[in-house]
Amino acid sequence: MASTTKSYLDLINDCDRFPYDDPLKPLGDHFWCQIYQFMLPEDPRTHGFMLASTVKKMPWTSDFVIDHKARTVRLFSSKDNGDPATACTTAFSKLIQRIIDEDTFRVIHGTHSEPYPIIGANFSVSMERYASTLFGIVSRGAHLTVYTKTASGMKIWVPRRSSNLFTYPNCLDTTVAGGVAFGEGSFECIVREADEEASLPEDLIRKQVVHCGCISYMGLNDRGGGGETGLIAPDIMFVYDLEIPEGVVCKQNDDEVKEFYLMTVGEVKECLARAEFKTNSALVMIDFFIRHGIITAESEKNYADIIARLHRRLPLPTTPQ
Amino acid sequence: MASTTKSYLDLINDCDRFPYDDPLKPLGDHFWCQIYQFMLPEDPRTHGFMLASTVKKMPWTSDFVIDHKARTVRLFSSKDNGDPATACTTAFSKLIQRIIDEDTFRVIHGTHSEPYPIIGANFSVSMERYASTLFGIVSRGAHLTVYTKTASGMKIWVPRRSSNLFTYPNCLDTTVAGGVAFGEGSFECIVREADEEASLPEDLIRKQVVHCGCISYMGLNDRGGGGETGLIAPDIMFVYDLEIPEGVVCKQNDDEVKEFYLMTVGEVKECLARAEFKTNSALVMIDFFIRHGIITAESEKNYADIIARLHRRLPLPTTPQ
Repeated sequence: MASTTKSYLDLINDCDRFPYDDPLKPLGDHFWCQIYQFMLPEDPRTHGFMLASTVKKMPWTSDFVIDHKARTVRLFSSKDNGDPATACTTAFSKLIQRIIDEDTFRVIHGTHSEPYPIIGANFSVSMERYASTLFGIVSRGAHLTVYTKTASGMKIWVPRRSSNLFTYPNCLDTTVAGGVAFGEGSFECIVREADEEASLPEDLIRKQVVHCGCISYMGLNDRGGGGETGLIAPDIMFVYDLEIPEGVVCKQNDDEVKEFYLMTVGEVKECLARAEFKTNSALVMIDFFIRHGIITAESEKNYADIIARLHRRLPLPTTPQ
Repeated sequence: MASTTKSYLDLINDCDRFPYDDPLKPLGDHFWCQIYQFMLPEDPRTHGFMLASTVKKMPWTSDFVIDHKARTVRLFSSKDNGDPATACTTAFSKLIQRIIDEDTFRVIHGTHSEPYPIIGANFSVSMERYASTLFGIVSRGAHLTVYTKTASGMKIWVPRRSSNLFTYPNCLDTTVAGGVAFGEGSFECIVREADEEASLPEDLIRKQVVHCGCISYMGLNDRGGGGETGLIAPDIMFVYDLEIPEGVVCKQNDDEVKEFYLMTVGEVKECLARAEFKTNSALVMIDFFIRHGIITAESEKNYADIIARLHRRLPLPTTPQ
């Protein structure tokens, strides 16, 4: 098998895959003219993008109104249903139970998952994590990069994912990472995951972690994601840094991590070039390299383009109106 | 006069003013269907966006071919002209001299300025800095934020611009900033300007400055920019940080800076809210606050949107093909 050598821009192209349509191109040629917009009751904004194949296959309940001409799926909650948050959350529960019972989508693989919010909604509605990709709503992750400054330069703590994970088994990953669940803040997610995944104490995290921004991109589910490919996955990853002294060690504390490596920057670069990282965790490493002056405008000709691509403006709301 | 109170998103809206058109809107309604695309010889890519009013008023030479139907301005350099770099640079020189002689545009105010590159061009072509906004090509700046950690928290060195500057007189600014000239790298620009503007020695800059990424936005010239308003100004600002010990001082070394203040983070926030900063330098402060955990997802509801807006993908090439 030929060995892979990916540039930083290649790695971004592997992750931020939803096309950038030229606004000067005729309307009908746009990729997202072929997809369905997911809408919430009494809200003119689009909250997700669904593939036509998903809309066709979905075992819809009567809570959802599909308009094939306008290419919209609207979660209908009449005012008789009372509180829209409860009505919509219940509608998702019923639909997801039907998907599980009928085993409709591989991406759900017959399993319930933790509640995920629709972050732009005007009321507090949740659906399950695995289903969020079917509706193409914005998901949120939190990623913490832990590093140490040594006499021989910076070293970075890099875990290898367990071989039994449904998504991206055996890939390298950010030191600590997790999905931000319904009702959770991104920093609280890091506090929780740092203990679960890397045995890093809460006190250290709360006192020493630096909030460093976020990465945003529009993914299309690939084979590593498990299940159907091409599903639209807009994602925000909140990024954090933690410098720890030499001698403090990250070690696995649950069965999601196989083992931890303390890598030099050069070793991380080689693993990136060989596409050994989970696709979106590669973006976290590239962003870290940019913020720490490891990738510079002088060393990388696509510098400005890479940085813009790491912070895509999502065509979906990220806050209530 | 009522006092201004701007949010971070307001400050970004004041700077990143070129509209984001909805790709689902009919083509003719797009803002940039009303503007002219500037093209270089033997290159299908657009390198700048010109207002129709600029195209109409420009004292064109025969080197430029205007197509009002296609809404393009093409710098024509027939192969007989030899090297396209020389031919195009000469064509710009002749045109700019004519603008100066006829005093056509206030933005040029009868003055020559330093050579600026067209960064996406496939050959090494330059025009003058003041003219670049008329053609709407991508300009590049370099911005260094100098800060000190004190017992009472972080303090930031903030200069006030001289009252005799053509653009943004009397505004607050990034510690050190300048336009990246033709043939210059952004880091070399910082080395040069750090001495000129803040009396910071070259050795300190080369050893201690951290490269931290870049900001990109699509501006429309406002009143602070001097001259015509509404000109399209795509811009990349390369950002750098320098931590200096207490006691090391920034002081003016040329007549572009009136004075330096050592401000607390709270004072910088107040000056931002009162719109006292040069519009694009406000973005540099916001980006610095994000990278240093001063603005967080917990404290700012528009966090993800702000970060995406600070890193706009420019619809123009930033590297040769």
